[in-house]
Amino acid sequence: MQWHDFHHPAPFVFESGESIPSFTLRYETYGRLNAERSNGILICHALSGDHHCAGVHSIHDRKPGWWNNIIGPGKPIDTNRWFVICSNCLGGCQGSTGPSSIKPGTNRPYDLSFPDVTVRDMVRAQKLLIEHELGLPSLYAVVGGSMGGMQGLQWMIEYPGFVQRVIALATTARQGAQAIAFDAVGRAAIMQDPAWREGSYEPGKGPNVGLAIARMMAHITYLSDKGMDLKFGRSRHAVRVKRFDPEFEVESYLRYQGQSFINRFDANTYLYITKAINRFDLYGESGRLEDAFRAVKSRCLVVGFTSDWLFTPEQNRELAHALLRAGVPVSYAQLDMTLGHDSFLVHAPELYRLVSGFLDS
Amino acid sequence: MQWHDFHHPAPFVFESGESIPSFTLRYETYGRLNAERSNGILICHALSGDHHCAGVHSIHDRKPGWWNNIIGPGKPIDTNRWFVICSNCLGGCQGSTGPSSIKPGTNRPYDLSFPDVTVRDMVRAQKLLIEHELGLPSLYAVVGGSMGGMQGLQWMIEYPGFVQRVIALATTARQGAQAIAFDAVGRAAIMQDPAWREGSYEPGKGPNVGLAIARMMAHITYLSDKGMDLKFGRSRHAVRVKRFDPEFEVESYLRYQGQSFINRFDANTYLYITKAINRFDLYGESGRLEDAFRAVKSRCLVVGFTSDWLFTPEQNRELAHALLRAGVPVSYAQLDMTLGHDSFLVHAPELYRLVSGFLDS
Repeated sequence: MQWHDFHHPAPFVFESGESIPSFTLRYETYGRLNAERSNGILICHALSGDHHCAGVHSIHDRKPGWWNNIIGPGKPIDTNRWFVICSNCLGGCQGSTGPSSIKPGTNRPYDLSFPDVTVRDMVRAQKLLIEHELGLPSLYAVVGGSMGGMQGLQWMIEYPGFVQRVIALATTARQGAQAIAFDAVGRAAIMQDPAWREGSYEPGKGPNVGLAIARMMAHITYLSDKGMDLKFGRSRHAVRVKRFDPEFEVESYLRYQGQSFINRFDANTYLYITKAINRFDLYGESGRLEDAFRAVKSRCLVVGFTSDWLFTPEQNRELAHALLRAGVPVSYAQLDMTLGHDSFLVHAPELYRLVSGFLDS
Repeated sequence: MQWHDFHHPAPFVFESGESIPSFTLRYETYGRLNAERSNGILICHALSGDHHCAGVHSIHDRKPGWWNNIIGPGKPIDTNRWFVICSNCLGGCQGSTGPSSIKPGTNRPYDLSFPDVTVRDMVRAQKLLIEHELGLPSLYAVVGGSMGGMQGLQWMIEYPGFVQRVIALATTARQGAQAIAFDAVGRAAIMQDPAWREGSYEPGKGPNVGLAIARMMAHITYLSDKGMDLKFGRSRHAVRVKRFDPEFEVESYLRYQGQSFINRFDANTYLYITKAINRFDLYGESGRLEDAFRAVKSRCLVVGFTSDWLFTPEQNRELAHALLRAGVPVSYAQLDMTLGHDSFLVHAPELYRLVSGFLDS
């Protein structure tokens, strides 16, 4: 199935108080909605993900959707049974309205005149899609990892009773200083690139150098020390011409990651979305995380990965404990995987059994 | 005491086979050489350090030397007793010959025509300083952290019998893929800065943006998750004017670190020195680390820090075990400190007692 665009023709007021006159969310669906409209599962993507989470649409697609291993017919999120929805988030750059979208009444992108976007804004826009476009009275589940997990948590806080179950993978109720620091350096790399031009670069002529550097660095934080040693070790790259050409395999790999990212992502969007992640903080003024979950009516599965040093198992557990203290039926699972933060995206039979078991229960 | 320059007027052949016609090492000494010339202790600095490791020389010095807490009269490395020597390393940019030095016979810096430099090259140049300039027949000890620790290990391998004791702090016999990856991104940030100009920038007009980004990122790796949470947490910066101005305290802190670094360090030098660190590998062709230590005659103290995730306690221990297997009298201490890799540089009474105890024993 191909993507669709949900056009919301009315103003959307962001958490910051700023607004835009209308917005679009690009989304895909998989499987069939049942007669009771009760089998909808919303998938929320992470920082650089998009609406295309499963399947191959055409011979031009080089890769299937980003979570194709877990979503599809007969898979843990079984599209023979569930009606799966995935949208590119508000503030994104892959079809949904964000800083790189044309600002109505102008011929220019919004750039930095786009409002600050928060995880809550993303969720509120998704709610409009789910209700107004798809006509669902409820969701069976919301599932996501990393920033997608933050959205899952926000969904059950924001709309008690609307979501039956939430699966939050490799996520946190708020980032620590180190994770913020990495994003801050990525933003600095973008903003100090002369091509950034205070955010008003011409489309296609953005701060590619800065964006690639930001991505290369962030990519290290998605993996793990041990995982990188297993994959690359100290292997050398065969051919070097100039003195500082990439020498170690891991150098070439990161260069490739940086270069391929600039072909599919927008620099201003990177600024907005990392800010949304950095600002996400469910602890609120009381400083007691459980207070955020008092009204929650969903069941919840929180999954952490031992090698995830970006959103650590300690943070995952802290989240699960706060849900318990708030009386939410929550299960916490910590999986021994070596791939770091990105563990939730890779082939992991143990995760598959947890996900399908939790959805079936 | 002020610095001195040791001029070596003859060619120096690097490990790579390349050579330079002469070189200078800038160094400082503290304390007095005894009549037997037997009380010399060489201090080796880390990536961005220099020859000024202790004391305040003039009213213009804003800060004392970088290891002033451990070196000085009555301190763990007691300059009332030891004759302490510290040189800026070969390949450096703080007075010793390196890529930013004027290439003899030209009016231009060496830039990328400077030979690849290795940790072994640095040590061989130091040996010339110790013997030819200072006339020492031996060293009582070599002490260093991080890249300085690598030099300590190389000293005892290269010159068995010359060094009685080595203290290697927060160091490793070789880096893993993750540590190489961070350096690789730093180098990419420098080399993709248009001001880098393939390394032939005008002095003072180098790739400051790239160098600052490299430093900001590296600085995160010198600290720790817990240490950053204790120091910064999610504290906000008070004043913000524009949308993406630094918001969290940790953002401002890193900006400051990046900006102050470009005032004291050279970008090409950063490329060379990080490469020297990445290439340092004592495992050799056999892949058995102990083989590197077969001829060693020094006693050794290896110290790791629990929160050091750049050169991890696992690596520190692996090093100590290999020294044991090679029959080297070695002690390993692992200190519980939260400050990460930089723990060896900060106030740490437990470390002080280990260092003075080991030197006295």
